Amino acid sequence: MRIEFNTFINSKIATIDKALDKYLQKVEPHPGILYESIRYSMFAGGKRLRPVLTLTTAEAFGCEAEKALPIACAIEMIHTYSLIHDDLPAMDDDDFRRGKLTNHKVYNEAIAILAGDALLTKAFKVLANATDLGVDPIIALQLIDEISEAAGAEGMVGGQVADMEAEGKRPSIEQLEYIHRHKTGALFTIAIRAGAIVAGVKNESLAAITDFASKLGLAYQIQDDILDIIGDEKTIGKSVGSDLMNDKATYPALLGLDESKKQVQKLTEEALLALDSSGCKESKYLRAIADYLVARDS
Amino acid sequence: MRIEFNTFINSKIATIDKALDKYLQKVEPHPGILYESIRYSMFAGGKRLRPVLTLTTAEAFGCEAEKALPIACAIEMIHTYSLIHDDLPAMDDDDFRRGKLTNHKVYNEAIAILAGDALLTKAFKVLANATDLGVDPIIALQLIDEISEAAGAEGMVGGQVADMEAEGKRPSIEQLEYIHRHKTGALFTIAIRAGAIVAGVKNESLAAITDFASKLGLAYQIQDDILDIIGDEKTIGKSVGSDLMNDKATYPALLGLDESKKQVQKLTEEALLALDSSGCKESKYLRAIADYLVARDS
Repeated sequence: MRIEFNTFINSKIATIDKALDKYLQKVEPHPGILYESIRYSMFAGGKRLRPVLTLTTAEAFGCEAEKALPIACAIEMIHTYSLIHDDLPAMDDDDFRRGKLTNHKVYNEAIAILAGDALLTKAFKVLANATDLGVDPIIALQLIDEISEAAGAEGMVGGQVADMEAEGKRPSIEQLEYIHRHKTGALFTIAIRAGAIVAGVKNESLAAITDFASKLGLAYQIQDDILDIIGDEKTIGKSVGSDLMNDKATYPALLGLDESKKQVQKLTEEALLALDSSGCKESKYLRAIADYLVARDS
Repeated sequence: MRIEFNTFINSKIATIDKALDKYLQKVEPHPGILYESIRYSMFAGGKRLRPVLTLTTAEAFGCEAEKALPIACAIEMIHTYSLIHDDLPAMDDDDFRRGKLTNHKVYNEAIAILAGDALLTKAFKVLANATDLGVDPIIALQLIDEISEAAGAEGMVGGQVADMEAEGKRPSIEQLEYIHRHKTGALFTIAIRAGAIVAGVKNESLAAITDFASKLGLAYQIQDDILDIIGDEKTIGKSVGSDLMNDKATYPALLGLDESKKQVQKLTEEALLALDSSGCKESKYLRAIADYLVARDS
């Protein structure tokens, strides 16, 4: 299974990278440095977790991956823009990400802000053109509506603001769950849900796969918190304990390591039950990704 | 005519403000400061030029303004986000806009960045839901495609990068025209073009109204450059000559005041000819706005 799984994932990543490369070509006569900056962050070694989930979910419900590809790419563009902006001096002030200099360290703050803005904007252009690959116009509009909600004030951006507001304080577990469910959870969830929507999934089945996504997303984030404590600096490419140093709210800080690990286990089990009840045709790769996310050490 | 024109414009502004107020209500349980920051800049005394143009153009082609209202609001959200980000210390570093403190001076840089991000994201959600007011789904997708292009790397963001690159240098007139046509022209043009698109305008007629928009947009920007030199500090609410002090590329700096004024006149005349050939049903208000933009002293 492991070799087959790796082959499957690597093939999906290659498909996504090729499409992103095509979408983000420099267009004349526009400023070269802007495209350089966009491409620097877009091809800085991201795991492509969200777009892989979009394609895998679409296929799990019998939809060809190609149809879901623009949606997968748009979500990865939004994820990447959010990382560029999060790393800015005014925000998390990070010099490195995945062992490479952050965008504003290579270019400058202004270019990093604008590269993020351009990527976010481009994501919606890509979604608007998903009809070229056979996505129904009504479905394309539904995806734009849901993805913008997941990325905006009622989703990722709201979560980022709440995270900043919680710095230096000790949030309640409810506040922490709000932060995780929005800052990272909203885009994670829509990555999976969008794959199902483009495959034509509706009603209870869509609710079940969304529940899978939402629970897996929270488990993934708690696991991230745990790895930040126990992970090996070299393996994950950022300073271990940096969240603690920045007084960031994390599950281990509030619940302790053991209880946090139990939460990951419980959420993952519940997620997999929801997956079973979603009625998807082929769940093995989604299941394998879920197992990988919980078992990973980086 | 002047009284009727003022009544017309004020009624359009009231319609737009009411819709923006509705779109940008705080949603529980998301962070209040984010909505405060968004609303601070959204209701900071903007002239609503772009959304007024969208509604006026739609009506000029026989479409009820209500149908164009979400498109008008989305464009104003994108305009406002761009101002918030442009004012940041890493960009133009402005403390005041229209005589009021800029967003990051009232809140902080992180909140200003995120408020801009949220507004840009929200604009696309509003566009995706324009079908609720009777916009055809295919037209809604076309608008999302064109507005994202006008706002992104091949439009406004590209122009902003080119403007920054030109700082402290003496650009050619071609480079300056590129900057104006993209940094401000692209969104100005799509504001008018989108009003025509939602009214069902196509082919030569759409090309003519787009030509009107593009020429009027450039005339408007050159007039802005001129006012920056000769304007009265109190009237326009920012330091006169600030563009010169920042070594910003402007038409008067390159061509002189007299030649710049001639350019405004020439472009406006050409724009009005294009308007005449667009076949719109009622051009008087578009014509009045064009006259106002060229004659304004602030």
